[in-house]
Amino acid sequence: MNIGASLPPEEPATIFYIGHHETDQRHVSNEVLSQAEDLGYDFVTTSITTPTFHTAVVSLIQDYQDLLQRACSTQVPSPGPLVPPLTPQDSTLTPEDSDTSRIAIASEWIDLGSTDPVVAYVSRQVFNLEVAYAAFCGVSNVIVHGPAEGGDVVQYARAIQEALGLGPYLQLHVLMPMHGELETEYPDGRHLSEFADAVPEETLEDESEDQGEYDVWETWNTIRTLCSYSQKLSIALEVQRQLPSLDLQTRWYSEPVRLLVFPRTTFLRNAKGYPVLSKPHQQLLSQFARLRFAPWMLLSDVGTLTTTTSESARSSPEPTPAEASDKPKEKPKDPVSHLRYLRHLQQTQPSRPPIERFGQGYQDYLQSPLQPLTDNLESVTYEVFEKDPVKYEWYERAIAAALRDLKDTVQDTIPIVVAVVGAGRGPLVTRALQASQSTGITIDCWAVEKNPNAYVLLQRRNATDPLWNNSVHVEKSDMRHWPGPVLKHGLGKVDILVSELLGSFADNELSPECLDGVQNHLSDHGVSIPQSYTAHLTPIASPRLHSDLLSRGGGQEKWDIPYVVLLHQLDYLSLLPPTPSSSETRTPNVQQAWSFAHPIPHHHLSHAHLRAGGGAGAPGWVGGDGSNEHNARSCTLRFTCQKRGVCHGLAGYFETVLYAGAKAEGEKVELSTNPVTMEGKSKDMISWFPICFPLKTPVYVPEGGELVVSMWRQTDDRSVWYEWVVEVWHTVGGKKRKLGMSEMGTSRKNACLM
Amino acid sequence: MNIGASLPPEEPATIFYIGHHETDQRHVSNEVLSQAEDLGYDFVTTSITTPTFHTAVVSLIQDYQDLLQRACSTQVPSPGPLVPPLTPQDSTLTPEDSDTSRIAIASEWIDLGSTDPVVAYVSRQVFNLEVAYAAFCGVSNVIVHGPAEGGDVVQYARAIQEALGLGPYLQLHVLMPMHGELETEYPDGRHLSEFADAVPEETLEDESEDQGEYDVWETWNTIRTLCSYSQKLSIALEVQRQLPSLDLQTRWYSEPVRLLVFPRTTFLRNAKGYPVLSKPHQQLLSQFARLRFAPWMLLSDVGTLTTTTSESARSSPEPTPAEASDKPKEKPKDPVSHLRYLRHLQQTQPSRPPIERFGQGYQDYLQSPLQPLTDNLESVTYEVFEKDPVKYEWYERAIAAALRDLKDTVQDTIPIVVAVVGAGRGPLVTRALQASQSTGITIDCWAVEKNPNAYVLLQRRNATDPLWNNSVHVEKSDMRHWPGPVLKHGLGKVDILVSELLGSFADNELSPECLDGVQNHLSDHGVSIPQSYTAHLTPIASPRLHSDLLSRGGGQEKWDIPYVVLLHQLDYLSLLPPTPSSSETRTPNVQQAWSFAHPIPHHHLSHAHLRAGGGAGAPGWVGGDGSNEHNARSCTLRFTCQKRGVCHGLAGYFETVLYAGAKAEGEKVELSTNPVTMEGKSKDMISWFPICFPLKTPVYVPEGGELVVSMWRQTDDRSVWYEWVVEVWHTVGGKKRKLGMSEMGTSRKNACLM
Repeated sequence: MNIGASLPPEEPATIFYIGHHETDQRHVSNEVLSQAEDLGYDFVTTSITTPTFHTAVVSLIQDYQDLLQRACSTQVPSPGPLVPPLTPQDSTLTPEDSDTSRIAIASEWIDLGSTDPVVAYVSRQVFNLEVAYAAFCGVSNVIVHGPAEGGDVVQYARAIQEALGLGPYLQLHVLMPMHGELETEYPDGRHLSEFADAVPEETLEDESEDQGEYDVWETWNTIRTLCSYSQKLSIALEVQRQLPSLDLQTRWYSEPVRLLVFPRTTFLRNAKGYPVLSKPHQQLLSQFARLRFAPWMLLSDVGTLTTTTSESARSSPEPTPAEASDKPKEKPKDPVSHLRYLRHLQQTQPSRPPIERFGQGYQDYLQSPLQPLTDNLESVTYEVFEKDPVKYEWYERAIAAALRDLKDTVQDTIPIVVAVVGAGRGPLVTRALQASQSTGITIDCWAVEKNPNAYVLLQRRNATDPLWNNSVHVEKSDMRHWPGPVLKHGLGKVDILVSELLGSFADNELSPECLDGVQNHLSDHGVSIPQSYTAHLTPIASPRLHSDLLSRGGGQEKWDIPYVVLLHQLDYLSLLPPTPSSSETRTPNVQQAWSFAHPIPHHHLSHAHLRAGGGAGAPGWVGGDGSNEHNARSCTLRFTCQKRGVCHGLAGYFETVLYAGAKAEGEKVELSTNPVTMEGKSKDMISWFPICFPLKTPVYVPEGGELVVSMWRQTDDRSVWYEWVVEVWHTVGGKKRKLGMSEMGTSRKNACLM
Repeated sequence: MNIGASLPPEEPATIFYIGHHETDQRHVSNEVLSQAEDLGYDFVTTSITTPTFHTAVVSLIQDYQDLLQRACSTQVPSPGPLVPPLTPQDSTLTPEDSDTSRIAIASEWIDLGSTDPVVAYVSRQVFNLEVAYAAFCGVSNVIVHGPAEGGDVVQYARAIQEALGLGPYLQLHVLMPMHGELETEYPDGRHLSEFADAVPEETLEDESEDQGEYDVWETWNTIRTLCSYSQKLSIALEVQRQLPSLDLQTRWYSEPVRLLVFPRTTFLRNAKGYPVLSKPHQQLLSQFARLRFAPWMLLSDVGTLTTTTSESARSSPEPTPAEASDKPKEKPKDPVSHLRYLRHLQQTQPSRPPIERFGQGYQDYLQSPLQPLTDNLESVTYEVFEKDPVKYEWYERAIAAALRDLKDTVQDTIPIVVAVVGAGRGPLVTRALQASQSTGITIDCWAVEKNPNAYVLLQRRNATDPLWNNSVHVEKSDMRHWPGPVLKHGLGKVDILVSELLGSFADNELSPECLDGVQNHLSDHGVSIPQSYTAHLTPIASPRLHSDLLSRGGGQEKWDIPYVVLLHQLDYLSLLPPTPSSSETRTPNVQQAWSFAHPIPHHHLSHAHLRAGGGAGAPGWVGGDGSNEHNARSCTLRFTCQKRGVCHGLAGYFETVLYAGAKAEGEKVELSTNPVTMEGKSKDMISWFPICFPLKTPVYVPEGGELVVSMWRQTDDRSVWYEWVVEVWHTVGGKKRKLGMSEMGTSRKNACLM
């Protein structure tokens, strides 16, 4: 059981926030802006400084280098020439431009990561001048070009980190291609890198060794790591015509992409000559559009605003003759056809799966798990859970199957005693009664509930619900202290014990401990629904969650909580090998951590009682007498990672067998949140979000590396907690070597109380 | 200049703390203990439990497994058999045994890292029972065997971590060989690992891939990392007859070794048949003996206490006839000969180098650097510095050489104006006057000092010191505001500017900024002593410092301080390739970060003034006007690591050229704390300890990996600070890949104020 989501809302209309970018438009006047808005654009980009400024800086550095060559180096200033303060000729931006319809672009001709100290120094001055002035003018979104190839990424990152402090509301977006090089061409002009000394050969050699598809991602990873996953830093990602592998697309999807940049060259022309995106591009766009904070879109060089009619894309969905005659390789004269196409896509976005509709607003939102044993739930919380379209249906199927089996095997147990323990507001009682009706097998139904408030509702329902018809025995009790059903001849036994105590990680809300405490009332042939459950894990890259946790106050404790979270913006680091039938899909390598089955052997319980009496020796762990040690678990799981990446945590899921008939042909009723099996076992179930075990220190893994996860379910008899640690192994020089290790995470201080 | 060390004390006598261990002695009675003390031993080891207990546990697990095989698994308790509480028959240890002369040994027949859950469960129970009972009895030092080969190191580590909580004063020592397997043989008896299920083949395969010399170290590294570098956890290191490489020896030297275990088999027999250690073993022992907290020594199976005479090793240094007839492979009958040999070594330990004598008690003791610009030093602090046997001598040589050069080149400058800026109590004034005497070149000497208290002493010395003879112009001023020397015809210029402003990392006490502030008084031909200085770096493994910082309270800030520290217990991670002449020594790969030279070109200063006036544009970094940017520096250094290891920080050193004559044949007077060059440039200099830039998150590096260090000297015109970050790169699958990265360390909040 988990919580936080409100009732499934109506699916909101998808809204694309689309901007217009032109590489040789140096400034956007209010007139141009208003024209763009009339055309249906939501925002435009604007440069911060003018060509005049560019020319001045180029002269400055040129003069400096001339002086260097003519004179001895002691006669030129150190560490380089000073860029003078901006003049009105250097920038046309004014505070009047500070609406959200403008996004500023820092000059693309600087080179912040230059290995030439003079170029780097001048570039930093230009960048700081521009960003500070944009922030001063109230334009807080600034796009900056990523580091040039072969540059010093660490120095680049340090410059970005510094600039992030230039304004409290500043957001920097690093413009990067998904892989390789940017497709967008920039206007001629002297790039400062031309003034750099020749790059030392060693550096060149280093770079040439590494031409992998993930290199751009790696660069981004270094930048944001050095900027401590700042929430003021994100990516302006150029979507190229040639998309990278699905793996790399998914990696970018997991990153904080604030802008998707579509160059004109990314579009195809359809038979009628209109610009369209390929199917894979459309899929990419749809995926990003479903994010909780969907990126904005930026159309780059699709047409000049000032030369078009002011016809609006919204009001005129049909192409103009001018568009129809557009040639693919020519610069389009109409800035509306591409926009109109995106608006068309906006209106035809596929609908979302139920869990996403249900969890709207809760994607990647970290919640602490419930403590249902110590807290009492509120009615609305129960109501949320009861809306699940699958879960209760499956419970009814399971109960019905169990009734049929019991009737066949044990003739004399009619009426069959069914006890719903932790009955809440009674949804499972209703299902048990319906199963009785549908199978025609009489039951004696007991509802045990510790929450005094829910107990009121149970009694009222018993009195008013025609199905219940006052036939249910409603008992106010913690199931662990319930004396058992009172039957005709005194205390009796339960034939079917129905519970819904599972958490996102199966046993994390103490289902094993609760059911241990009540199973003494189960008859010898009695069954527990659920019969068994398993916890499952897979390592994930989830920069958003990591950034979220880093940005919170507090110390160590926030890293030691397993969070319930509708995981959405992530990348699975370990995949199953593709099968012929699944070549198009990426199936995560989700492995089972451990399992529980009910009822447990009586001998285990009596042994636990023996320990609890203090008659036994030392427990496995400190702090208790060891009476709950039969519910301790541990596992070591190995995950091979096909691509390089960073592991930010472990995603946890569960599966449960509600009921599997004793007979081979019997029906097996299962629930699953495991992404690999949920489709087959309980499609569209919405009751549980996954769990996430965070890593305070994310660990790098190279391609082909192995993440070894050690995990424990620990108990000291008063509480239950988890511990987790991730090691990285890889073959280096022919030998298997450890490359890194996370800290040991532990929820001992946030343990679930028994 | 750095501080903290008191006056060089007399070298204390080396004391070995030596214990006696016998593998088949299960308990040490008071009688045996007192005999051991009579013989000259300082402590003995004792088992915690008896063979009776061992037999009982073996039966317990045997019965459990029989039951498992006979019956269905539901009839045996989960998760395994319970070890009953200890009875008086199970242990002969009592609280009366709680003196420091006893070290307890946990049973060697357990297997805490067993992959068989039942064996691991029983082992944990035994271990916890034993450790808890020993702690209860007041025996707080417990030796525990390291994980068995092929075991689960992470599970083992988790068990150790748990046991560390069993007593507030408990110290656990993990017994490990330096490499390979333990030499000490243990008595026959059923080891619990015999009851384990066959190890799965996959695990075996994994392990067999990795047979490197550093495997045992790697295991230790995992254990202590998972135990968060606990100061309650250390190593009992077995010194085997076959020593590992010098590299691995040094690695162990850097680790928290609390006990050095010498098995009988490690000793050789000399010509007369007495046990001796080989030269390499002696060197190893001497090295460890010089640690601030030297490990104890444990002689293992060198003779049974109860069968020997009570003759004392201290009182009888000559061998007995029984010893003389001892055969190498026979068990010696005399427990004294080995002890006597170690006592002999104790008395003949080589004397320590001056810096170690001087720094006695300060090894690996982290100090925050001085703020000499904002704080005034006390007299005793000056006194300490003035004791240096090398530094001032070298200054005098440098001043004399400068005087000679100046006299030759500029005939009309006599008397030559010498200004000592930051004169303190005047040691450099004295040296300048002596240089004048020895060269016969007249000087006009100025002493500038901002500390009002030192100013009193300077005046007194001028009046009372016959060498000074009231000839020195003593000026109370911050050198940056000193108006310059007043000569016959008004304000004049300085010919030789003498200062001692260097810190452990050269420029870290703001020497560049101070000298910038006074150099306007330097004549055109004037020289600064020092003329130049350079900062140097190398990555180190220093678990002791990391553990020390972890154990301190406080948050992030403690990781953001460059500490002045007499680095001692460390391992250099990157070495220079051995040369024919240095094949026996390990030369660290210390690289230059950056350099400063004085005086700086006038143009740089005037440019800085221009920036300070606010007339310039944006500074490189936020927070100032950029007037000190000519003193900013940055570097990217690459260090190849020959062996796998963990980088805990960067060790920093400096070199300085006090004076190098303009003429080719001129003398070059240099100081160095760089371990590679200090011997040649300024042997036995004691004034500076190294600096250490810590890494909050240590980074793993595999063998052959490259540590890339990016470092900055940053300034915002009001202060100076450092930033540092370490990346790990390696070739994986033929491609150069990043494997990890530290956080960005920054001393911005602990900056040196200008």
